[in-house]
Amino acid sequence: MLIVKKFGGSSVADAAKLFNVAGIISEDYNKGNSVVVVVSAQGDTTDDLIEKAQEINPKASKREMDMLLSTGEQISISLLAMALEKLGTPVISLTGWQAGMHTNTTYSAARIKDIDTERITFEIDKKKVVIVAGFQGVNRYDDITTLGRGGSDTSAVALAAALKADVCQIYTDVDGVYTADPRIVKNAVKLEDVSYDEMLELASLGANVLHNRSVEMAKKYNVELEVLSSFNRVPGTKVKEVSDVEKMLIKGVARDNDVAQIAVTGLKDQPGVAFKLFSLLAKHNINVDIILQSAGQENNIQEISFTVTEGNLETALKVIKDNLGAIGGTDVKFDKNVSKVSIVGAGMASNPGVAAKMFEALQDVGINIKSISTSEIKISVLVERGMAEKAVAAIHDKFMLP
Amino acid sequence: MLIVKKFGGSSVADAAKLFNVAGIISEDYNKGNSVVVVVSAQGDTTDDLIEKAQEINPKASKREMDMLLSTGEQISISLLAMALEKLGTPVISLTGWQAGMHTNTTYSAARIKDIDTERITFEIDKKKVVIVAGFQGVNRYDDITTLGRGGSDTSAVALAAALKADVCQIYTDVDGVYTADPRIVKNAVKLEDVSYDEMLELASLGANVLHNRSVEMAKKYNVELEVLSSFNRVPGTKVKEVSDVEKMLIKGVARDNDVAQIAVTGLKDQPGVAFKLFSLLAKHNINVDIILQSAGQENNIQEISFTVTEGNLETALKVIKDNLGAIGGTDVKFDKNVSKVSIVGAGMASNPGVAAKMFEALQDVGINIKSISTSEIKISVLVERGMAEKAVAAIHDKFMLP
Repeated sequence: MLIVKKFGGSSVADAAKLFNVAGIISEDYNKGNSVVVVVSAQGDTTDDLIEKAQEINPKASKREMDMLLSTGEQISISLLAMALEKLGTPVISLTGWQAGMHTNTTYSAARIKDIDTERITFEIDKKKVVIVAGFQGVNRYDDITTLGRGGSDTSAVALAAALKADVCQIYTDVDGVYTADPRIVKNAVKLEDVSYDEMLELASLGANVLHNRSVEMAKKYNVELEVLSSFNRVPGTKVKEVSDVEKMLIKGVARDNDVAQIAVTGLKDQPGVAFKLFSLLAKHNINVDIILQSAGQENNIQEISFTVTEGNLETALKVIKDNLGAIGGTDVKFDKNVSKVSIVGAGMASNPGVAAKMFEALQDVGINIKSISTSEIKISVLVERGMAEKAVAAIHDKFMLP
Repeated sequence: MLIVKKFGGSSVADAAKLFNVAGIISEDYNKGNSVVVVVSAQGDTTDDLIEKAQEINPKASKREMDMLLSTGEQISISLLAMALEKLGTPVISLTGWQAGMHTNTTYSAARIKDIDTERITFEIDKKKVVIVAGFQGVNRYDDITTLGRGGSDTSAVALAAALKADVCQIYTDVDGVYTADPRIVKNAVKLEDVSYDEMLELASLGANVLHNRSVEMAKKYNVELEVLSSFNRVPGTKVKEVSDVEKMLIKGVARDNDVAQIAVTGLKDQPGVAFKLFSLLAKHNINVDIILQSAGQENNIQEISFTVTEGNLETALKVIKDNLGAIGGTDVKFDKNVSKVSIVGAGMASNPGVAAKMFEALQDVGINIKSISTSEIKISVLVERGMAEKAVAAIHDKFMLP
């Protein structure tokens, strides 16, 4: 079996952890598997390097930032290789360029164009564990690039796709995907499997297990993912094309606090108002979610509210204020004291009772719903932030408990 | 003018020093010169990385050590590039493999085979300062290699040769080559120029300014070197084919404490004894120096003494003891309480008075000479270690003072 394994920075943070990871790798190698490993930079290495750069030039070019940051993974691949050598496991480490990770030229946020697997295949054929630096690649100028947020997960999935690996195992500090955050909901259950689409919704809703970009790529190339922990050796959660829909309709309840609600008031109730507003925000690269458009009131005046991430709040407010006249509104307000609570599961759209059951759960515990948004596999509601954990627990109990 | 500049680790140890170096580079660039810069890893970076590796696997493969250590220079080139960007100087940093530094496959002690200057020339033509990672290269397997001790000096000289640079400036923490160590001899004088051969002798005698390997390469390719300080802006010392012999016969007085004397006694006074002894040591890669063979005494018994570096002492003693029977000796003794004091200067061999003058200087201050060794451009004596500084001062005064 050909296995691609990815270990994040916290899994390789020090010598003891490196040997733990080396042990996991050797175990699978000794069973006769071919193993390709993708590693991130150790612990805080990347942040430390960014700090060094900031001290010298906060406006350093992205090309030089990538040159700098890519050393973090180069350090961890060589140290992990040394740990495997110590265990007597044949091994070789490869940087992004050595591993044939060809990207476009967008420094600091490069996208993988193709992977020339010749070198990796050559080393696998020599019965070596191949350790590849995650997060990095090389562009057509022979310059080093980095892949931006979630880069190492993306490296691993892309490698698994290119090598036609049997499975891509993503090791994190949790041992799988749960029906809810176990820190909030005591009786949260680990899922055996989940579909790509469900995982995408869960990730975007703050489940924080896999980066969306890697899940999207896994879906595109049909790479079977497994999310598991590097700190214990129990089976994790599999992410694949179709999950067992029959078994469990709702896959998880998620909470997202990185959300702020904006309301534009005094809008004329006429065609094109929403278009003007949202195309303006799109032009500034601001994603919006949970849109609520009030019905026309007296004098044909209406209100549109929507949510953005907290990081986008300030820009969004400024853009709207600067263009309030063009949009045709009178005022803009915002509320940061909100959370998004969602249930995710395939086939939800064809089960109309699901939404009702969710709202009932919230009503049972006296939580007010501010806005609602639904999709094929997701229902999200906006609630007061202080109520979010209670909402998650109530919904979880309603759906999950027998 | 095309200038290659090399800055050592202490010259780029922190942000302030990086900006100092960036200032020196920008100044020359703004005068219309093309500037290629070779940098070492910052301060203690390399030692810190070695320590990390030791913690994991003291017997790590050299290939993985090179993968690890090469990150040190990659960090310093990107940070220096950022400092130059801040000063508004167009710049690009290149790793060893990007700069076309092709080496053989001897990891940790690789030798440069050739430099493909295409990328560097391309960037120079775009009017950029080009910063190249010293100490590292790439072999024919596309693997990263490091050049071992004195590697960055060698990188700089090799680049200067390949690019046919007008001068290769080596910046250190001293501002040139002196007639003696200024810390020992108060009236030591900075030399304006020195020949390659003289520099080679001075370096091997502990002047510690340039690594021999880089001087040998500079001599081979006739690269004009200049040794100067990054901490002040005064002219340094030029190293070139022929120094101004007329001006000053003796170029410098040097002391070397990294020396231990070994004596093998009870040897039969017959042909082949010295050959047996020294071929044995050569087989174990031990260099010997200052050989003294006593004249045959009663019973045709003689003694051979010689010096080795302190690092080689233990191995040398063991090798000799293990083979004492085969060599034909009765005992081996050693003395670590010695120093080598030497004078260096071209044309010494044709000036028989020089040696006498040196010995006279030592006699004047009552220092006993244990052994003597001479070459075309060097006379070395072995003295008691506690007397070495006094010896240097006495010889320096004798030759240098008007």
